[in-house]
Amino acid sequence: MTKDLKIGLLGLGTVGGALVRLLLTRAEQIERAAGLRIHVKRAAARTAGKSRPASLAAGALTYDPFEVVRDPEVDLVVELLGGINPARALVREALAAKKPVVTANKQLLAEHGEELFAEAERSGVALRFEGAVCGGLPVIRTLRDALAADRVASLHGILNGTTNHVLSRMTEGGGSFGAALAEAQAEGYAEADPTLDVGGFDAAQKLCLLARLAFGARVRPQDVLTEGIERIGPQDVAAARELGCVVKLLALARWVGGALDLRVHPAMIRAGGPLASVGGASNALLVEAEALGSTLLSGPGAGGACTAAAVAADIVDVGRPGAGAPLPFTAGRDVPLLPHDQIAASYYLRFTVDDAPGVLAGLTAALGKRDISIAALHQRERREGREPVSVVLLTHRAREGAVQAAVAEIDKLPTTRGRTQLIRVETEKV
Amino acid sequence: MTKDLKIGLLGLGTVGGALVRLLLTRAEQIERAAGLRIHVKRAAARTAGKSRPASLAAGALTYDPFEVVRDPEVDLVVELLGGINPARALVREALAAKKPVVTANKQLLAEHGEELFAEAERSGVALRFEGAVCGGLPVIRTLRDALAADRVASLHGILNGTTNHVLSRMTEGGGSFGAALAEAQAEGYAEADPTLDVGGFDAAQKLCLLARLAFGARVRPQDVLTEGIERIGPQDVAAARELGCVVKLLALARWVGGALDLRVHPAMIRAGGPLASVGGASNALLVEAEALGSTLLSGPGAGGACTAAAVAADIVDVGRPGAGAPLPFTAGRDVPLLPHDQIAASYYLRFTVDDAPGVLAGLTAALGKRDISIAALHQRERREGREPVSVVLLTHRAREGAVQAAVAEIDKLPTTRGRTQLIRVETEKV
Repeated sequence: MTKDLKIGLLGLGTVGGALVRLLLTRAEQIERAAGLRIHVKRAAARTAGKSRPASLAAGALTYDPFEVVRDPEVDLVVELLGGINPARALVREALAAKKPVVTANKQLLAEHGEELFAEAERSGVALRFEGAVCGGLPVIRTLRDALAADRVASLHGILNGTTNHVLSRMTEGGGSFGAALAEAQAEGYAEADPTLDVGGFDAAQKLCLLARLAFGARVRPQDVLTEGIERIGPQDVAAARELGCVVKLLALARWVGGALDLRVHPAMIRAGGPLASVGGASNALLVEAEALGSTLLSGPGAGGACTAAAVAADIVDVGRPGAGAPLPFTAGRDVPLLPHDQIAASYYLRFTVDDAPGVLAGLTAALGKRDISIAALHQRERREGREPVSVVLLTHRAREGAVQAAVAEIDKLPTTRGRTQLIRVETEKV
Repeated sequence: MTKDLKIGLLGLGTVGGALVRLLLTRAEQIERAAGLRIHVKRAAARTAGKSRPASLAAGALTYDPFEVVRDPEVDLVVELLGGINPARALVREALAAKKPVVTANKQLLAEHGEELFAEAERSGVALRFEGAVCGGLPVIRTLRDALAADRVASLHGILNGTTNHVLSRMTEGGGSFGAALAEAQAEGYAEADPTLDVGGFDAAQKLCLLARLAFGARVRPQDVLTEGIERIGPQDVAAARELGCVVKLLALARWVGGALDLRVHPAMIRAGGPLASVGGASNALLVEAEALGSTLLSGPGAGGACTAAAVAADIVDVGRPGAGAPLPFTAGRDVPLLPHDQIAASYYLRFTVDDAPGVLAGLTAALGKRDISIAALHQRERREGREPVSVVLLTHRAREGAVQAAVAEIDKLPTTRGRTQLIRVETEKV
């Protein structure tokens, strides 16, 4: 029993092109294993004139994405446009017309997931998005299916390939953030405007999707404490190494008491831990669940081919003959979020101060009066003359609110010569 | 819409007990997320008199497993007995009666998978087995679903927790195999009769299941080159370290030309590679696929709770309202197997020989005349008097057949005082 499935494709960029090629190359295998013949009935490109996959049927190509969604012969819509507009309207219209949707658009689901999942449930069709997080890594599948009867306690992940590439380069080569980013851009690992990646926003969007699946929590990017890697310097990378750590852009979501701690920020994590060896542009997710224990998934995080493979797997799942009804949409519930000032961590602090008597006393007093105890302190690179010096300090476990207040006070001292660098040290699970 | 599912449970040992507890603890979550209420209608224990999960309904317990399968109210059968008999007859009967089966029995599926999957297909019901391989790690799910539209090139795994625990202990503590095994037994990480684990047979069974999913290949444990870790000594572990490697019981399956290379044996793998840091009783699988790239899954490999979580996820998948038809059984095809003498690898060889003139010449001649070239040679621990000495040697890439012939010749030399140790060095992917 073989079934023909006509798909409508929105977006013919890197992932879209790779998908068309993959569906052609693996057509026989998909038919043999799942009884499914997939046809790209219509495909919308954003701009005219680019080269298109040769295997597209004559007449399939259009520049109006709504034509694709409205084509009555299209059974399933694949959205690979990215961004909010017009993707949101297109996905909504497809779902309302009872066409299942497969998307790799993390931003759309992170910001408008509530509305779109509700539309999918009303229509009783699937809205699938394995390609939206961690490229080809089956993280969505794992959280949704493998953990169906388990309770997730925490997620720790490296969810952005660009920043991991840049930080790995800084760790290996010792260079500056700017130099590592420029190299990454030259090699195609970073966008011309890298803000979304470098600022942690892309990872925060992915974390929201994962937290929804893992915890049933209705969270949005603005709920995530988000800090980028722009201010990480070679001296921070070197200090991490001395502490037996590496600097990574860490995404984490975990229950602290009854509240959800949600963050994306640079962190020092143990050099021997499970996430430290995730190099280059790879992604990884460490899921800690009650029964299952700690499971690590890691692999290439981005790229046309691996995202296309994840999208194709979703198409097969949803479209194959005998495919079941979609899992009912578990309406995300509002959960208490851990206020950011209640975060508990160890902190690495790097002060830029005058090399003068009494300066250290000023620093330690600001910390001490807030009960922040110091685990180690090091004055670095004493320079000649009146150049400022770096004082590096590691705290014992402390509250974020107290540490931020102390840093704010210190940054106002007349002997402080630059903004203090603060990096959280997370070595408990990772 | 909530559905009631009555399951029949075969086996109330560690995993069975953990499953009953898990289904109770997570009942509300399963009902909310999947619309499913699971009841343990009947449960068969092997032996009377042991303590039983308190939550079993009165009258549910029996000592005749066939009663469970034949109970007309049982909708789905969970087989956790292990072994071939009576599990094979029970699973066959359940499937023939159109009852889906969820099992964690790797031996049964590795040896009689062909028959049982065919029975499942005839009846149009599911036969699921996520718990059979790597405890809670979603490896089956990943190979079956996530790679639906991709082509797997190779699998490399650490599939047995007991041997990984023993080898990790030897690597950390430097002790003997016997001492590490005794410790593992005392701590509950190894069975009283550890042959299945230690000899590589358990890992070979799991590899057969994975190869069937990844390659559609009809392979059985006897097709796998299987060697255990019994002969690994502290000197081999130390030599591995000097080579920048660690010794692991490696399971691998990969295409070499058009033939499948299938093996489970101790191997030296790169200390910095993705499998080297998999410690203790953990399991890991590295899947290399054409589009997806290299994906690593790692986590706890065994234990009642994590296997129960995998079994419960399968029950929910199969039993939930709206669950689809099972994927059609892809009849495994017979594929050419790479003859073992055609394996290509580097080899670590440790000879135990007389400390006499001409001995080295004898060794190198036996290798040289078979075109096996030597990458490094080291004579170790010269002892006083007439004690034999160890000569350790690393070959360049060579054919297994040639190396085995050379070793057989060397082992017959009058100056050879013990059986030569041979460990393959696999550093290309892992």
